[in-house]
Amino acid sequence: MKKVLKNCLVVDENLNFEKKDLYVEDGRFVDFAEENAEDVEDLKGALVLPGLVNTHTHAPMSLFRGIAEDVELYEWLSTYIFPREDKLTEEDVYIGSLVSFMEMIKNGITTFVDMYFFQDAVAQAAKDVGIRGVITRGLADISGNGGQKLKECEDFIKAHANDPLIRGGVGPHALYTCSNDYFKEAVQLAHSTDSLLTFHLLESPLEREDYVKRTGMESVDFLDSIGAFDERTIIAHGTHFNEKELDLIAQRGATLSYNPISNAKLGNGIAPIHLALSKKVNVTLGTDSAASNNSLNLFDEIKFGVLVQRAISKDPTVMKMEEVFSMATKNASKPLPFEVGKIESGMLADLVVVNTESLSLSPNEYMKSHLIYSFDTSAIKKVMVNGEWVYDEGFLNVDFHEVMERFEKAVSSLNSRL
Amino acid sequence: MKKVLKNCLVVDENLNFEKKDLYVEDGRFVDFAEENAEDVEDLKGALVLPGLVNTHTHAPMSLFRGIAEDVELYEWLSTYIFPREDKLTEEDVYIGSLVSFMEMIKNGITTFVDMYFFQDAVAQAAKDVGIRGVITRGLADISGNGGQKLKECEDFIKAHANDPLIRGGVGPHALYTCSNDYFKEAVQLAHSTDSLLTFHLLESPLEREDYVKRTGMESVDFLDSIGAFDERTIIAHGTHFNEKELDLIAQRGATLSYNPISNAKLGNGIAPIHLALSKKVNVTLGTDSAASNNSLNLFDEIKFGVLVQRAISKDPTVMKMEEVFSMATKNASKPLPFEVGKIESGMLADLVVVNTESLSLSPNEYMKSHLIYSFDTSAIKKVMVNGEWVYDEGFLNVDFHEVMERFEKAVSSLNSRL
Repeated sequence: MKKVLKNCLVVDENLNFEKKDLYVEDGRFVDFAEENAEDVEDLKGALVLPGLVNTHTHAPMSLFRGIAEDVELYEWLSTYIFPREDKLTEEDVYIGSLVSFMEMIKNGITTFVDMYFFQDAVAQAAKDVGIRGVITRGLADISGNGGQKLKECEDFIKAHANDPLIRGGVGPHALYTCSNDYFKEAVQLAHSTDSLLTFHLLESPLEREDYVKRTGMESVDFLDSIGAFDERTIIAHGTHFNEKELDLIAQRGATLSYNPISNAKLGNGIAPIHLALSKKVNVTLGTDSAASNNSLNLFDEIKFGVLVQRAISKDPTVMKMEEVFSMATKNASKPLPFEVGKIESGMLADLVVVNTESLSLSPNEYMKSHLIYSFDTSAIKKVMVNGEWVYDEGFLNVDFHEVMERFEKAVSSLNSRL
Repeated sequence: MKKVLKNCLVVDENLNFEKKDLYVEDGRFVDFAEENAEDVEDLKGALVLPGLVNTHTHAPMSLFRGIAEDVELYEWLSTYIFPREDKLTEEDVYIGSLVSFMEMIKNGITTFVDMYFFQDAVAQAAKDVGIRGVITRGLADISGNGGQKLKECEDFIKAHANDPLIRGGVGPHALYTCSNDYFKEAVQLAHSTDSLLTFHLLESPLEREDYVKRTGMESVDFLDSIGAFDERTIIAHGTHFNEKELDLIAQRGATLSYNPISNAKLGNGIAPIHLALSKKVNVTLGTDSAASNNSLNLFDEIKFGVLVQRAISKDPTVMKMEEVFSMATKNASKPLPFEVGKIESGMLADLVVVNTESLSLSPNEYMKSHLIYSFDTSAIKKVMVNGEWVYDEGFLNVDFHEVMERFEKAVSSLNSRL
């Protein structure tokens, strides 16, 4: 399939804007393509952004959006989340994922990294919406079945080795839900299959001392000893990394997924991103799930992510606009198995078309600032993934009303089974 | 004019929801009205919220949205803002205000408190959009013309004493732009005309010591000595209030306008709202201007306002959902000359109609949480001010394309005059 998009105002990684035509062939941007009339679409000066990349989420958890607010992380997990997860069916996971992916696409997110279970259902939802993603099997052995989960994880990776939209990955949940041995097995699986590895680390204040008390070792030292930090690794949260640990992460080339809204909301603190950037750690952005955010909108993460660093440092010059935009786009391509996050010949054709005649983007002269500080996703007109339009003037690839009805029924039914 | 709104899901100040019909007559909610077929509108279960109140803004400054990011407050004011303000025409102020009020209405804000100049132009823009507001003359005598400004302020107050939508107020800018004597005159004008008084106070970290150095007095002590804190007073920011000062503010019955996004963005710190609430200070929310926010969306202020308190305190139980919703609605009615912020017989008929079949409001069962933590203003369908629809399925009272064109031209022309 071929497409020519005329008259685009394309933004690059330095937030510079250039008027040009874009050529797409077989799901990638190309320098030039012969055009036939039916391939050509005139975007009439609309702003074109690379699709955003959400490097940490649990898509099915839109089912739990709003169930419990204003409680501590462990209480939230053990009282509200885990009992519901025990009762989830594959259909629940499918419909929850569908709703999350619809929200992501409407908000300009074209690629995600997910950690959950019933991976096939998550993958089906992603394909139905037309979003790209790495779907990792969430792994934990404290409640048993560790081996079975690893097997499912490996099978999914193999089944999707050549899928254009979906890849598998390995997601050991955290050091407080995995034994050290099990975590090591998970890391080995990621290495042997050359897959993305992702896990929660130092999210809450108590995590560090709990682990030291239990094992006599720092969690970062243990993880480094088993090779858990490399260029295919995404560390979710890292809220409580110290300077020495950030040096190590930078040296190993691992990626940090900064999830400021979820971290703030759960009272876990805020990751030292300004320090991480000064150490050249590769930082990306994640929404975490709709249960702890409660939106799936990286433009919120961009704005809040900068502002909260400034609220804490009281320094209005902390974090530059280009830095945070790169976190939401090109930085994610490093650990991912997809060439995404930049509009450039050879990269995958994922893009977002924005109406510049929007209150939140005016005056147009200062567009660069608006992308970071005032962007309202209702200005998004169209979204392309892999060279195909998956959102067009309000319409998604799935029937909105039908999905919402199924979703509400699934939540009612789940609650009645508790 | 009479209206009957059937089948509303009305939210009250405690975030409880009740299905009922609403009756509106002569711009106010009434218990019951005889209905004719032409008065009746079936809202089919849509969510109905009281209109939100933005207690601190400078509407014309949408002209400066995005002009300078990531700089210190005083540099931002002196290098970027003040030179442009010197060149503003009445037409500039009108078109800038128009764009801000359009954004506010689309985001569910039905009442504002503004501080600027060319008050007549601001008022005209408000009337053209159909929004309600208190328009205060920004007062400062450091650059001269103090007397003239006070005169304009008084004239505007008198001219709008009985206006249903617009009232005048007194806005001495700050203690660093007004002499003590001039500030005192401003307070006296507010008292003699029984008008709303509003000013910036302790916004930035240096303000306290600068004032003490200059006068040998604490700013709060001086302001209290001239009667600046009373039930008709809105203090903007108060970022650096200490405990003793919050006690005094509570005792005097003055209102604090919490502007978390602007405060964070400019590196000014975050107001101690949790402490203020424990002292029973009346707290409301403000967006500040589009130049320092850069949006005009109180739902962003609600979410960020809670989250940033938690990011700093590391306590996920700080600030309850009902508390922050009240800040955006009913708390504002105390200092304002309008009975707004609640849907109740006798109150002014300002309301927001929301489509509950929205990703950001699902699952519907947890609607209360969604209003605080995931609300997306694209779910807003209609907005009523003073019993009249001023926004209806994308349409405002003004021509969107025409306004945006005039706005872009005004900004270009202003920049060419610098």
